[in-house]
Amino acid sequence: MKKYAVIVAGGTGKRMQNDIPKQFLLINNKPVLFYTLNVFLKTFNDLQIILVLPVEFMSMGREIIDGYFNNERIIITAGGDTRFQSVKNGLQLVVEESIVFVHDGVRCLLSPDLIKRCYDQAIETGSAIPAIAIKDSVRIITDEGNEALDRSSIKCIQTPQTFHSKILLPAFNIDYKDKFTDEATVVEAYGLKVFLIEGEENNIKITRPVDMLVAEKLIGDFS
Amino acid sequence: MKKYAVIVAGGTGKRMQNDIPKQFLLINNKPVLFYTLNVFLKTFNDLQIILVLPVEFMSMGREIIDGYFNNERIIITAGGDTRFQSVKNGLQLVVEESIVFVHDGVRCLLSPDLIKRCYDQAIETGSAIPAIAIKDSVRIITDEGNEALDRSSIKCIQTPQTFHSKILLPAFNIDYKDKFTDEATVVEAYGLKVFLIEGEENNIKITRPVDMLVAEKLIGDFS
Repeated sequence: MKKYAVIVAGGTGKRMQNDIPKQFLLINNKPVLFYTLNVFLKTFNDLQIILVLPVEFMSMGREIIDGYFNNERIIITAGGDTRFQSVKNGLQLVVEESIVFVHDGVRCLLSPDLIKRCYDQAIETGSAIPAIAIKDSVRIITDEGNEALDRSSIKCIQTPQTFHSKILLPAFNIDYKDKFTDEATVVEAYGLKVFLIEGEENNIKITRPVDMLVAEKLIGDFS
Repeated sequence: MKKYAVIVAGGTGKRMQNDIPKQFLLINNKPVLFYTLNVFLKTFNDLQIILVLPVEFMSMGREIIDGYFNNERIIITAGGDTRFQSVKNGLQLVVEESIVFVHDGVRCLLSPDLIKRCYDQAIETGSAIPAIAIKDSVRIITDEGNEALDRSSIKCIQTPQTFHSKILLPAFNIDYKDKFTDEATVVEAYGLKVFLIEGEENNIKITRPVDMLVAEKLIGDFS
């Protein structure tokens, strides 16, 4: 089936104390976004990327595409004020029945294996949400104070959140709610269940300066 | 009030694919455990450390103490098969009414400020459990599948878990249960509430090889 990857790179760099958004920072002389785009392109040769960027960084994104990929499999579109709106903008460009990966641009360390497993499961069950075990003890804040949660029942959610287009496109027509923290919550609000799949410990989201160092180390280990 | 820090360094290195347990690995030529012990010793000059180590690594621990600290404020004792048993062994050496910090030996990046805040709160409320906001979206596995949790109500728990000795010592006389993942869960099983306090993002637990790199970077930033 046709495949689209909506790569959301909406950040404008505020958390990194850096004028350059983190998706454009360099690891081994190549931007974070290069690695993210590259792994999707090399995993499936019939996959189309829809890259969602803040308007003010669309030309920087264009330079990366022209500099590293020189191909027609990447389209850029403008993001919105929320992740929901950014993804919704990207989904306008999904014009065929397909499997759609929605992925954080700053998660540049995922493997082709994870992408393939998400595809296979989304074909079968309609969705595939990568999740990993939580490392820390966790507690939930309650009206009476707080209480321990059984760590084995809690999962940390990653991307690519992967769906059949027949599910994802109508789900994104519902009205925005604050609780939409990812695509899975949108699909649930639309009334459907989502299915988890085992994620990857290395599939980190680069948010703090020290995460760049981790990413550099892990990319070094791969190559 | 008198202060004890029970530093639990029970790991024997299996997860790090390394013959040396992670608490003995070097960061800037000093063992992880040096940094952990040092921050407690320098925060309070009337604090006694009870260092709990696997039997086979007690002599290595002794070398660190003799090499770096040369003082009488650190006692070593042998750990048990579980964290509960290791902490219980350490608590045998708490002989005065006191505030007791129980801390992971591999969390070497906490600040004196966190230790002081835990002390102050434990004096006031009997306990202080450092907790930080969770970065990822989280889901809970249910009988029917899985569902999103409100991320803002979920906290990741750190150490030093800090208690008044009048609470902690009797709590550790109850029978061991599998759900005891930390000291807070023991105190709750004993029938008391625990109080959270804001933890620190840098107060990471060194578990994977890449965490060593993060610790090295963060220690470099401090010094």
